[in-house]
Amino acid sequence: MEKVSIKFDYNNMMSEFVGRRGIKREEVAALSSKAQEAFYDVGRERGTGMLGWTELPYNQEDAVKDILSAAAQIRERFENFVVLGIGGSALGPTAVFTALCHFRYNDLPKEKRGGPRFFVEDNVDPERMNALLDVIDVEKTCFNVITKSGATSETMSQYLIISELLKEKLGDKYRDNIVATTSAKKGNLIKLAADEGFKTFYIPEGVGGRFSELCPVGLLPAAVLGIDIKSLLDGAAAMDEKCSSATCTKNPALMAAVLQYIAMEKKSANISVMMPYSDALKYFADWYCQLWGESLGKATDKRGEKVYAGQTPVKALGVTDQHSQVQLYVEGPFDKVITFIAVDKFRSDVTVPAGAEAFPDVNFLCGHTLQELINTERKATEYALTKAGRMNNAIILPEINAYTVGQLLMFFQLETAYCGALLNIDTFNQPGVEGGKNATYALFERAGYEAKKAEIDAAPKKNDKYII
Amino acid sequence: MEKVSIKFDYNNMMSEFVGRRGIKREEVAALSSKAQEAFYDVGRERGTGMLGWTELPYNQEDAVKDILSAAAQIRERFENFVVLGIGGSALGPTAVFTALCHFRYNDLPKEKRGGPRFFVEDNVDPERMNALLDVIDVEKTCFNVITKSGATSETMSQYLIISELLKEKLGDKYRDNIVATTSAKKGNLIKLAADEGFKTFYIPEGVGGRFSELCPVGLLPAAVLGIDIKSLLDGAAAMDEKCSSATCTKNPALMAAVLQYIAMEKKSANISVMMPYSDALKYFADWYCQLWGESLGKATDKRGEKVYAGQTPVKALGVTDQHSQVQLYVEGPFDKVITFIAVDKFRSDVTVPAGAEAFPDVNFLCGHTLQELINTERKATEYALTKAGRMNNAIILPEINAYTVGQLLMFFQLETAYCGALLNIDTFNQPGVEGGKNATYALFERAGYEAKKAEIDAAPKKNDKYII
Repeated sequence: MEKVSIKFDYNNMMSEFVGRRGIKREEVAALSSKAQEAFYDVGRERGTGMLGWTELPYNQEDAVKDILSAAAQIRERFENFVVLGIGGSALGPTAVFTALCHFRYNDLPKEKRGGPRFFVEDNVDPERMNALLDVIDVEKTCFNVITKSGATSETMSQYLIISELLKEKLGDKYRDNIVATTSAKKGNLIKLAADEGFKTFYIPEGVGGRFSELCPVGLLPAAVLGIDIKSLLDGAAAMDEKCSSATCTKNPALMAAVLQYIAMEKKSANISVMMPYSDALKYFADWYCQLWGESLGKATDKRGEKVYAGQTPVKALGVTDQHSQVQLYVEGPFDKVITFIAVDKFRSDVTVPAGAEAFPDVNFLCGHTLQELINTERKATEYALTKAGRMNNAIILPEINAYTVGQLLMFFQLETAYCGALLNIDTFNQPGVEGGKNATYALFERAGYEAKKAEIDAAPKKNDKYII
Repeated sequence: MEKVSIKFDYNNMMSEFVGRRGIKREEVAALSSKAQEAFYDVGRERGTGMLGWTELPYNQEDAVKDILSAAAQIRERFENFVVLGIGGSALGPTAVFTALCHFRYNDLPKEKRGGPRFFVEDNVDPERMNALLDVIDVEKTCFNVITKSGATSETMSQYLIISELLKEKLGDKYRDNIVATTSAKKGNLIKLAADEGFKTFYIPEGVGGRFSELCPVGLLPAAVLGIDIKSLLDGAAAMDEKCSSATCTKNPALMAAVLQYIAMEKKSANISVMMPYSDALKYFADWYCQLWGESLGKATDKRGEKVYAGQTPVKALGVTDQHSQVQLYVEGPFDKVITFIAVDKFRSDVTVPAGAEAFPDVNFLCGHTLQELINTERKATEYALTKAGRMNNAIILPEINAYTVGQLLMFFQLETAYCGALLNIDTFNQPGVEGGKNATYALFERAGYEAKKAEIDAAPKKNDKYII
């Protein structure tokens, strides 16, 4: 694997390229000391509090050994590997799987795959659960239950359903088909795992769900899939190193944060579109959407002032969404920043053969490769957006491999942390999720939630006239 | 199949429920005559111009017969059915497939599937094309090439690659493995299909890509998958009938359009989130995103005034995205409308068994079903959003079947047409896509695009300092 560096190209964020609705050099310069503060804010807390994730590239030597050894056994023993998890426990593993495995991995015959088939179950739709059970033999399946607290309703429901099925089939040996990934210190799952004797991996302190891909949450599934997890961590370390300057012009993640901050605060860009031009990176956009949306979407800042901060992340895919969303991006409101993820060299290519001599509007493609086509269309879309005065930027991967994907993960995590510091919010909590959780508990009449239940019952009844 | 009706619940759009940032009754009343005009604008053009799609539930008797007969043969003969298409040619077939087939359809053994495996190839990523070829035997595969003009670069590149492969394997008989779906009147593909002798289906006049799911574009793939296409059309007709009043309180699609129009024009809601609580409807949100984004995202109105209209559609999935996006929706900017798609009764269910007696924060789930859990979480999220003053509404399906999915398709198509009329824009064109297309032609040095090439070459060169 080539240890190549990814790059951040922000030319088309600047008014020099994109016109009056772009960002002026002076605006970046005016923010440089605030950017420095954000950099030092993040740096000061490295490895402490909820910034445990910054150290993951450096402090997991033992964990990696344990993971590789467990993964080798799982690859040998099981036909299927199923992640039971939701949020960060699902989005990271899915993103890395899609980026680094064969695009039709599960459809390959076993000898070409090398590892088990892979499923990530991140919902409680009953039809989906039953559909999974229709296509796997649970006895030949390893289930990786991932929840830090062991109290995640969705994951624990799945766990209960699956463990009962396994017990029916395997009796006491059922425990060999379950691996737990959870907090080392507290919660239900760690207790359960100890009582039942599950193989267990630990989520380090200070690593929240959306920042957990580089800990065992993501590393175990990746290793089971045969992905080079050391290179993933090396890539993350390389990006961390690249972002070690307090000067935003020398720190790509800091510059990205500064530009998005200016875009949202001064240019009415309340939308951030993440648009990889690569099917392999499609689910990277999903992972980004949680990271960016849940970290920055906050009602109050650190002083307790109401700010209703946040930028809505949108996932798109090039070239596919040129035929769906680009009309809106080029002609609609000036309310968004578009971030391309570009790949210079794909892992394989195909040439468009001759055969369209009669059709000049098709014939020009003949003799070119699909790599040329996808990348030319990306450049053309970038050009069209820029000409229409729409801010856009690009992350460029020389190629997709574990090392560049590791960089990408760390880039966006650092950008998010810096941007949260610029907004002066708590980047690492999610207080807004509690409301819905408590309402669920109340609706299920869980003990202790009687007051919430009374509150819900007292809410105005729906007007039937408003249902048509 | 039960011929049940879907419903539109807009209680939580109204200030009576959602508070001061909601919509007042008077605001709806003040818009009622404008809404009537929009209704009559759309009605007047029914079946003409680009409103050919309104008649699809009524005028396809012959096409349906032909489709069912071809589909029966395809089901018998082929192991795989691959759609080569992009935009509406891909999003509609994918949405209906996911809604109405087994959730792990391709993973089922052939006897349980009944029909061929199904793939929709809507990108020109070379890795993805090669991955497909790794897992299908092209000789046993039927390729449905869908492009109205026969000039869509992506689809025609795929066609050229595939037809060459087929010719190598099958010689002249290769034509039996290709079905064309295209304009009856003009374009490359209709000529090619006639010359080569492909079985061909026609996209009627006045049916644009994003409004094409109910014509052979969508009906052939659906029929090949064993989906009841007559019920799909019946459902669409039923919704059309339900939306035959000019009074918005009696016409759900018109009311939905009016509320979104007020939300975007008066309440700064430039974002529309589509959030089905059902994995089967996940790709319905993708289909909606094209319909809404590409139809309403327009720089100029019908008078030629610059308006930069449009609302950015966002796809989300319940409950999954409660662990990703709901923090932002509850606490972030007041800039969005959230539309739930709810399913009262799923096609199967699973009970969460006992086994968590030691853990009260999990034990309350035991004995409940996943259907209860997903629907209770939806209600809880709705409650939390409403309490936080966030506009939301719901489309409620008593169950998911071809009849309710047909209603859903027609509902959103009509809503989009009405909303375009309210905005006084051309709902059915996509002029903003031309810029990127022309730039692609120029970058490939296609004859006739020399001026565009010169324009691109003359654009300011990127500043290397802005690449880090």
